[in-house]
Amino acid sequence: MSRPIYDRVALIGLGLIASSMFWAMKRGGLAAEVTGYARSAQTRDTARRIGLCDRVCDSVVEAVQDADLVVLCVPVGAMGQVAQDIAPVLKPGATVTDVGSVKRAVIEAVAPHLPENVEFIPGHPLAGTEHSGPESGFAELYDNRFCLLVPTEGSDPEAVLRLRRLWEGMGANVEEMDADHHDLVLAVTSHAPHLIAYTMVGVADDLRRVTDSEVIKYSAAGFRDFTRIAASDPTMWRDVFLNNKDATLEILGRFTEELFALQRAIRTGDGDHLFDYFTHTRAIRRGIIEAGQDTDAPDFGRGAKAP
Amino acid sequence: MSRPIYDRVALIGLGLIASSMFWAMKRGGLAAEVTGYARSAQTRDTARRIGLCDRVCDSVVEAVQDADLVVLCVPVGAMGQVAQDIAPVLKPGATVTDVGSVKRAVIEAVAPHLPENVEFIPGHPLAGTEHSGPESGFAELYDNRFCLLVPTEGSDPEAVLRLRRLWEGMGANVEEMDADHHDLVLAVTSHAPHLIAYTMVGVADDLRRVTDSEVIKYSAAGFRDFTRIAASDPTMWRDVFLNNKDATLEILGRFTEELFALQRAIRTGDGDHLFDYFTHTRAIRRGIIEAGQDTDAPDFGRGAKAP
Repeated sequence: MSRPIYDRVALIGLGLIASSMFWAMKRGGLAAEVTGYARSAQTRDTARRIGLCDRVCDSVVEAVQDADLVVLCVPVGAMGQVAQDIAPVLKPGATVTDVGSVKRAVIEAVAPHLPENVEFIPGHPLAGTEHSGPESGFAELYDNRFCLLVPTEGSDPEAVLRLRRLWEGMGANVEEMDADHHDLVLAVTSHAPHLIAYTMVGVADDLRRVTDSEVIKYSAAGFRDFTRIAASDPTMWRDVFLNNKDATLEILGRFTEELFALQRAIRTGDGDHLFDYFTHTRAIRRGIIEAGQDTDAPDFGRGAKAP
Repeated sequence: MSRPIYDRVALIGLGLIASSMFWAMKRGGLAAEVTGYARSAQTRDTARRIGLCDRVCDSVVEAVQDADLVVLCVPVGAMGQVAQDIAPVLKPGATVTDVGSVKRAVIEAVAPHLPENVEFIPGHPLAGTEHSGPESGFAELYDNRFCLLVPTEGSDPEAVLRLRRLWEGMGANVEEMDADHHDLVLAVTSHAPHLIAYTMVGVADDLRRVTDSEVIKYSAAGFRDFTRIAASDPTMWRDVFLNNKDATLEILGRFTEELFALQRAIRTGDGDHLFDYFTHTRAIRRGIIEAGQDTDAPDFGRGAKAP
């Protein structure tokens, strides 16, 4: 077998992303030892019970001691505090990375706390499911998914390369991007769609003249895809929106503008406008399937089988 | 084997819904003979080539001759014209039904053309995929899906029961509902979500500072679920929005109101509001899974497998 890429990796926060990293590192033999820490005693107990991490520590300081790579897998709003807590005990030459869904705010919250002799290389694996918690992880989560690295100015190229090799070893395709562009791209592909899905699900639930049971029974008509997105972890998403405020609000502004134009087309009976718009969006789906980022199986292949 | 429910069924329009009905009727031995008609000669040729329908006819009049059940599977905007064309040749005592996604407008367009001695029982199977055309159908499409029947005042209970048995034979759970309530429920569970998905995909494509290839590459973060919905048939959806104008615009109005409230919470940093909202919507997902209307497998079970 190949040699591990890091001798010791510390995972701080043990949810879907960290637990999937652990199983993926084990699968690839990428780390000699993986320590783990979670703030909640219950999460630590669960981790110990299911064998998540080689060693689960009761303090964050213990977990990061002697670690060559520290991965911050906590909600974006908690990153700053964790950075402050671990800064005094980080091993000189260690790399600190994170998996947060926004990057500018994380850099501003984390970087000021870290000592000079530590490399900070923010990251963001574009993978996840609607499930969360230590038991939701699986080794294949990152296979053929993108992981974006956001090296800061002055990042050591060798440390960046090493982190890249870790993510590639976990199955991901790694790309580099600057923080602000990352935050804008993700506002489009992730943050705005999540807020929209949350909103639509909230509206459906709130409607007096349509019962909950009707919404649930007849959800297969399109709505259920929204509910999957809107079932994602509330803490994580609260922090995403609060920390990528500008880009998210910009995209939502554009969205509202466009939605109003389509509403007007419906109201005035402008069928050509609707038809042209829908024809155009259909082509984008084709691009995503050709890029290997989704299945072409009808309905994502769930339930019934095509002939 | 059990006896067929209808001796002759005519499918008018040969897209996803009709072709799935054909394969489902064959699977269940539900119709002795199924004729089919499509306006496009190319569609008729394809149908003949793949054995879709026992007999493909070159005129709609020929297709409905002697049919005990006529199923209108054309876009909602075309239903009135088809009804007018077939009315003179419908067999006395025959049942006419449809599969349109809106019901009030279809009733208004179709009913006035039909002779007194024919039963008109509007219907709507809540099933579909993002694919369309005669080759997209499969026998299992309706398994465990709902089919809503909207009997008009004075519908013959026996004719309704017979149509119900056909849909049940194709795997569906049948419910009855009045037309206006149907149109409101579907505006919530289907029409508004589709327009929102179309809009979001259009916005993403239109953004100058984020390239198409970035949107496509990084779509797995949530956006790709929208693109699946926004890949649905443009003609069908244009007609849905034009023919369920009031209910769709009402729901979109509620949606916009709610979206603005969440945008304000983001802008003002009201994390509690966001957290509470997201916690609530998560519970709705649970209801849909418990009702058997979707899979609990992460990410719909596509791609990677859970342990």
